[in-house]
Amino acid sequence: MSTDERGRVDGMAQQIAGNGLLDRRLFVQAGVAFLSFVGVSALRPETVGAADPPQTPPWMQGPGAPLSPYGSPAKHESTVTRTLIRSQPGTTGSGASRTPLEALEGMITPSGLHFERHHSGVPDIDPAKHRLLIHGLVKRPLVFTMEALMRYPMVSRLHFLECSGNSQLMYGATPPALSCGQIHGLLSCSEWAGVPLRILLEEAGADPSTPWILAEGADSAAMSRSVPMAKAMDDAFLALYQNGERLRPENGYPVRLFLPGYEGNMNVKWLRRIKVTPTATMTKDETSRYTDLQADGKSLMFTYPMEVKSVITRPSHGMRLAGPGLYAISGLAWSGNGTITTVEVSADGGRTWAPAELSGPVLPRALTRFRIPWRWNGTPAIVKSRATDSAGDVQPTRDKIVAEHGTNVIFHYTGIQAWSIAENGEVKNVHA
Amino acid sequence: MSTDERGRVDGMAQQIAGNGLLDRRLFVQAGVAFLSFVGVSALRPETVGAADPPQTPPWMQGPGAPLSPYGSPAKHESTVTRTLIRSQPGTTGSGASRTPLEALEGMITPSGLHFERHHSGVPDIDPAKHRLLIHGLVKRPLVFTMEALMRYPMVSRLHFLECSGNSQLMYGATPPALSCGQIHGLLSCSEWAGVPLRILLEEAGADPSTPWILAEGADSAAMSRSVPMAKAMDDAFLALYQNGERLRPENGYPVRLFLPGYEGNMNVKWLRRIKVTPTATMTKDETSRYTDLQADGKSLMFTYPMEVKSVITRPSHGMRLAGPGLYAISGLAWSGNGTITTVEVSADGGRTWAPAELSGPVLPRALTRFRIPWRWNGTPAIVKSRATDSAGDVQPTRDKIVAEHGTNVIFHYTGIQAWSIAENGEVKNVHA
Repeated sequence: MSTDERGRVDGMAQQIAGNGLLDRRLFVQAGVAFLSFVGVSALRPETVGAADPPQTPPWMQGPGAPLSPYGSPAKHESTVTRTLIRSQPGTTGSGASRTPLEALEGMITPSGLHFERHHSGVPDIDPAKHRLLIHGLVKRPLVFTMEALMRYPMVSRLHFLECSGNSQLMYGATPPALSCGQIHGLLSCSEWAGVPLRILLEEAGADPSTPWILAEGADSAAMSRSVPMAKAMDDAFLALYQNGERLRPENGYPVRLFLPGYEGNMNVKWLRRIKVTPTATMTKDETSRYTDLQADGKSLMFTYPMEVKSVITRPSHGMRLAGPGLYAISGLAWSGNGTITTVEVSADGGRTWAPAELSGPVLPRALTRFRIPWRWNGTPAIVKSRATDSAGDVQPTRDKIVAEHGTNVIFHYTGIQAWSIAENGEVKNVHA
Repeated sequence: MSTDERGRVDGMAQQIAGNGLLDRRLFVQAGVAFLSFVGVSALRPETVGAADPPQTPPWMQGPGAPLSPYGSPAKHESTVTRTLIRSQPGTTGSGASRTPLEALEGMITPSGLHFERHHSGVPDIDPAKHRLLIHGLVKRPLVFTMEALMRYPMVSRLHFLECSGNSQLMYGATPPALSCGQIHGLLSCSEWAGVPLRILLEEAGADPSTPWILAEGADSAAMSRSVPMAKAMDDAFLALYQNGERLRPENGYPVRLFLPGYEGNMNVKWLRRIKVTPTATMTKDETSRYTDLQADGKSLMFTYPMEVKSVITRPSHGMRLAGPGLYAISGLAWSGNGTITTVEVSADGGRTWAPAELSGPVLPRALTRFRIPWRWNGTPAIVKSRATDSAGDVQPTRDKIVAEHGTNVIFHYTGIQAWSIAENGEVKNVHA
């Protein structure tokens, strides 16, 4: 491989940042002279004779499996699962399971792999008996059956959900030797559909100038959070559908609160009660839990939006590059404060950066897939990504996050993630 | 209920087309005076005292179910399945299963409910042994392992797939007494991710002026179709992922061809071979099958794009409205020739029409969810939807389709769907 004085690699493609990052348009423009993968990859396709047709494999020699009422993933993908991490010893349903981000592509998380965070397991709710009460400072307290709720006008939107405790291991001094999903996988993105909360609050006769609501779940932890009325009247909705079908049990079946961009726990699952209140209720879940203990011993409360963040999902910790050559770096970016405007990628540990391609649709408060081509020269390298959102916020370094918030906190970690690539191709999690 | 001289219903909401269709913005604008559901619906919420908190249901009285590696739908939703319709008696895997459109919301189809159409069942393919051959008129015939293919740059896009035989029962003189999904459910929409075919063809050294390619599947039917090179070099890609995870077996695992907007069967599943050819290959699947027999006994061949179409999914055949009052009409629109620009809805059998709200993102060759509020007055009514796309094409009436193509044909039915609502609320499929 040679780089000439104009920065062109092999005379074919422009290097636009250090250590082999190539123009993001290289892969997406029609008609561009293409850097062949032939001859640069240990995984290169075989060149063969013009044999026609190829040999008939065993699975073409008889009829295949029947049609089915509801499908499942291929058995060969059985290792692609959520990683269960229980935070409360001795319990089975209290804790979290994480989405295997490194095994996925695009922006949607299949519902079977959506992360879980439960405070007392998944309640087995009979939708015919479940009720939603809207009460407190309202003119007409109302009780909704699910059948009644399903009749209301709906909206549908693609939004991420992220647990506020996502990536918390990265606050530690030692970078955890875990996969991308095991570290950052309290993060998923679905299409959610349901009824705007505003409609129901108006019907109950809530005064929109009342400052708060309380939302309570029907799990045995009675998980509950206070939500500003302004958010409730803005883009909040009661989600009934997830990726087209009714909510999954572990995501709040038959109904959950959805607050676009806000930390996961506020999107109260198994919603049974909305109370309009003059003050925040100060539930256990917003006093002893989900407050952000700072270095000075004080805690931040009510830290709602999940801030701008990104992570490279491929290559990531635990993978091994097959040798020098062309690679497609792929990752995810998101912000609870708006839309992703830029993702920059570095292959030289942060010295130089190049803009990645954002895969549309780029939507507010949704995961955004980014990609950029990279020619790895076989020497040690460190790759990073850095996202910017429509609010003008730029994803901070780990050092900056730690300097601002200390290491007592376990919530709202947004630091830039670095993965190192060794000469033998091994990819590892590093603080860099 | 009274309608005053300005067309306002109950003095609150503007009727904008006949028989109670209301302004589409009624439900989505903040701050608009809202037509209360209270008192107009047999399903109205109960008004209650300010009991605080409500009774504790049994599922709050003990810990819930544990975390799980891969989730499933709620047991209470077990009736939401694909409808199996086998077209070849005596076989288990040849035929089709249909998406239950009437049970879904939003634009995404969960992968477990994506429609199926197989010609010899679902092959059980070992991805480690599967190979993709690119050969024919190329400089370098190439064989790809799946591992090699996974390393290539990818794109991800939201697109519908529709079987060309979808809705074929509607060509018949008697409207079938079946659900929306059983009639129109050879239609689904997913996020697909994979490798642009152009990259692989360029790597093999295919001359883009060669007019055709052949794509062949690794099922025992060796399902195969000829595809114009222009499409192959434009937006075609080899899909490896569906809604985030690897393809489902019944959708072509480990790799399928994806041709945005083209009839389903051309998106060859279990892809094992791309051959660059000087002419169309005239396979069995494009001569004896998937040609469109017209009234004059001649057949149309190579009818690729699925034309502009829409259907109201709620209310639809088999449902029953609970009494006069407000309803949210919801449906789907799509076009293989571009983006949906307008969906109009009629509640008076097609005499007058009102524009429905399109739920974003409105994307080319993807399902688009539309909605409009409707106040049903309790008398017999007929609801219809009519879509227009960015190519300027307007969905035709059934009469027009039949006049143009006759009733020998079973493919490419796009006629406007009418559902009748009887005085007792029963919804039925009608030709109207």
